[in-house]
Amino acid sequence: MLSKRAISAPASPIRRLVPYADDAKKRGIHVYHLNIGQPDIKTPKQWYEYIEKYKKDVVSYTHSQGIRELREKFSEYYNLWNITVQPDEIMVTNGGSEAIMFALGVVCDPDDEVIVVEPFYANYAGFASYLNIRLVPVTAKPEEGYRMPDIKEFEKVISPKTKAILFSNPSNPTGVVYSKEELKTIAEVAKKYNLVIISDEVYREFTFDGTQAISMFSFENIKDRLIIVDSLSKRYSACGARIGTFLTKNKEFYRAALKFAQARLCPAEITQYGALGLLEADEEYMKEVIKEYNIRRDIAFEEMSKIPDIVVHKPQGAFYLAAKLPVDDSEEFIKWMLSNFEVDGKTTMVAPLSGFYVTPGLGKSEIRIAYVLSAEKLKDAINIMAKAIEEYNKRSK
Amino acid sequence: MLSKRAISAPASPIRRLVPYADDAKKRGIHVYHLNIGQPDIKTPKQWYEYIEKYKKDVVSYTHSQGIRELREKFSEYYNLWNITVQPDEIMVTNGGSEAIMFALGVVCDPDDEVIVVEPFYANYAGFASYLNIRLVPVTAKPEEGYRMPDIKEFEKVISPKTKAILFSNPSNPTGVVYSKEELKTIAEVAKKYNLVIISDEVYREFTFDGTQAISMFSFENIKDRLIIVDSLSKRYSACGARIGTFLTKNKEFYRAALKFAQARLCPAEITQYGALGLLEADEEYMKEVIKEYNIRRDIAFEEMSKIPDIVVHKPQGAFYLAAKLPVDDSEEFIKWMLSNFEVDGKTTMVAPLSGFYVTPGLGKSEIRIAYVLSAEKLKDAINIMAKAIEEYNKRSK
Repeated sequence: MLSKRAISAPASPIRRLVPYADDAKKRGIHVYHLNIGQPDIKTPKQWYEYIEKYKKDVVSYTHSQGIRELREKFSEYYNLWNITVQPDEIMVTNGGSEAIMFALGVVCDPDDEVIVVEPFYANYAGFASYLNIRLVPVTAKPEEGYRMPDIKEFEKVISPKTKAILFSNPSNPTGVVYSKEELKTIAEVAKKYNLVIISDEVYREFTFDGTQAISMFSFENIKDRLIIVDSLSKRYSACGARIGTFLTKNKEFYRAALKFAQARLCPAEITQYGALGLLEADEEYMKEVIKEYNIRRDIAFEEMSKIPDIVVHKPQGAFYLAAKLPVDDSEEFIKWMLSNFEVDGKTTMVAPLSGFYVTPGLGKSEIRIAYVLSAEKLKDAINIMAKAIEEYNKRSK
Repeated sequence: MLSKRAISAPASPIRRLVPYADDAKKRGIHVYHLNIGQPDIKTPKQWYEYIEKYKKDVVSYTHSQGIRELREKFSEYYNLWNITVQPDEIMVTNGGSEAIMFALGVVCDPDDEVIVVEPFYANYAGFASYLNIRLVPVTAKPEEGYRMPDIKEFEKVISPKTKAILFSNPSNPTGVVYSKEELKTIAEVAKKYNLVIISDEVYREFTFDGTQAISMFSFENIKDRLIIVDSLSKRYSACGARIGTFLTKNKEFYRAALKFAQARLCPAEITQYGALGLLEADEEYMKEVIKEYNIRRDIAFEEMSKIPDIVVHKPQGAFYLAAKLPVDDSEEFIKWMLSNFEVDGKTTMVAPLSGFYVTPGLGKSEIRIAYVLSAEKLKDAINIMAKAIEEYNKRSK
């Protein structure tokens, strides 16, 4: 009685190893979670302040596109980043997740194709499967620092079924921040082949070493074919708020997404009030957060670089680092690390990268680290993994 | 660049007349909103108490199926209603809306068919369109009090593409509470033709005159093919909480829905804490609420019955009443009522019923009233509508 889409839907590669971690915990082992982008940084205090401020007798539906006041505040925020969208060009969604689903639904019918830059945020595959859309990959290679593939690689995979290009910048899972030239590739391909660009820019503010994340919004000639996806989850360490946005200047896209939004009624009222508060967080908060991630990025990269035979590049953004480990199968290695390895009662969990690819076999030795723990813990966690690799490879030879 | 599914997605019949109401308000007219199921009843105070109680430094992701504690509490609640589901058979969703979408996705591929009893909750059509599923209607007729169609009507429309039957009990929009015999029809058809039953039981507690809403869970032989959809929105006057549930004893269904749930990460954390509070609301709260709706139901029915040439039956549940008005086109009538009619600076908005049907042309003279306002306002609102009908028919002849 199960649908084919239910059968073929991928289990989340980030969450599917959770039972192994749970088992380890049951045995009394402390597990460092570098597998999921759940930061330990405090959510701004304005979250609860605004929830308190907007207390209501009746917890009511809101407008399907989100409350006006929140869309106005978002508009001000985006204007600061030169993304000049008006409140009526902003839709509040249940996290960035729903914004991506709306974007895919607006543009694609079943069996249509969307080009993704692999490795990509793994849940794109889940959304595509739910909506019966085919993800067609162009591959960013670990040996080349996961940079944007050449325009020719895009042209190779375009078919009459291709409707859109979907990618994130800064990139989850690689931490790469694309240059203006690299993004121009996307803009040019989209323009030339009449494709829609779905640009996932949730890590916009997390960049290091003076790098700036350039929004696709800065390319004038593709504004009518652009949907930007955003989220408050990472920016304000508020993953559980589930507040994202769907931004577009294309009125047809907006109207279509609104129909999908109306069917599900609205995002939770109280989280929209909380989001109003988050957008009031002072600049100092963001500065401190970026500073902290910068420190962690440095430590994560430094410690990872010490691992013999690893392929790793210094990421410039987001809070992820992807690397190719000297192991045959990273998923097997992670299971083993959780099940059979410990140092002083501690072990480490990271995400296997194969689920972030569509091409079978790719990413098999790669992993993603989310550097969402404090510097000290992060260092300890990576050192434990380094020892685990050594042990694992001895064992299997 | 728009997908066919985006083009064909229906605009919500409940929300699409909102601009006419907004215009009326701009002209200084007071609009009675009987068009949407947004009650005026207070949400239990435990909502904010629990949100306060569970304050956290970091607003985090939860398990994709919802926090354990909430699923345990839901399990206790369902057990009281003889729906013996365990916490691992309960998934917390973004309102009943998402539970329906998961259910449809678990069972249907594009172009598959789902039988619906029309008139049905209009947003079913939106979800089906988003997932490229065809809704195939069997019709409940106003002249027959919108009772469940005969088993032969179901058998007439079953095809090899039919995968499920989706309906609500008590019914939104008709307020009908189905008898054991009527529900047996559904169970028998499902069993005989290997269909899944998606039973939307969100109005379970809203029944009058000693009527009981029987859960599909009480039919032993279809438990393996049953998905129950539930929501806290109406029960606790907490529509903006966006907390629903997806219940099933079928482990394959659950696992498949969990994959969809993992892709979108989790429902908002804070609303899950609030929901814990709602489930602590005392019995007195529910008793008072039902008593209040009972009074309103009586008034709504009494006032509606006075309208000449109306077809209306006394509803036994939910907080809706559907009726066939003596007008040619109820949508045109409602627009006219909002744009050209007032009594002492007031007018009334109701929902046109055509959007609650799939069969073209049906429901054209019908409307739905949500009796979610206080008795006095309700009476005034219906009287205004009665006068509007008289005026409208004079005008058009």
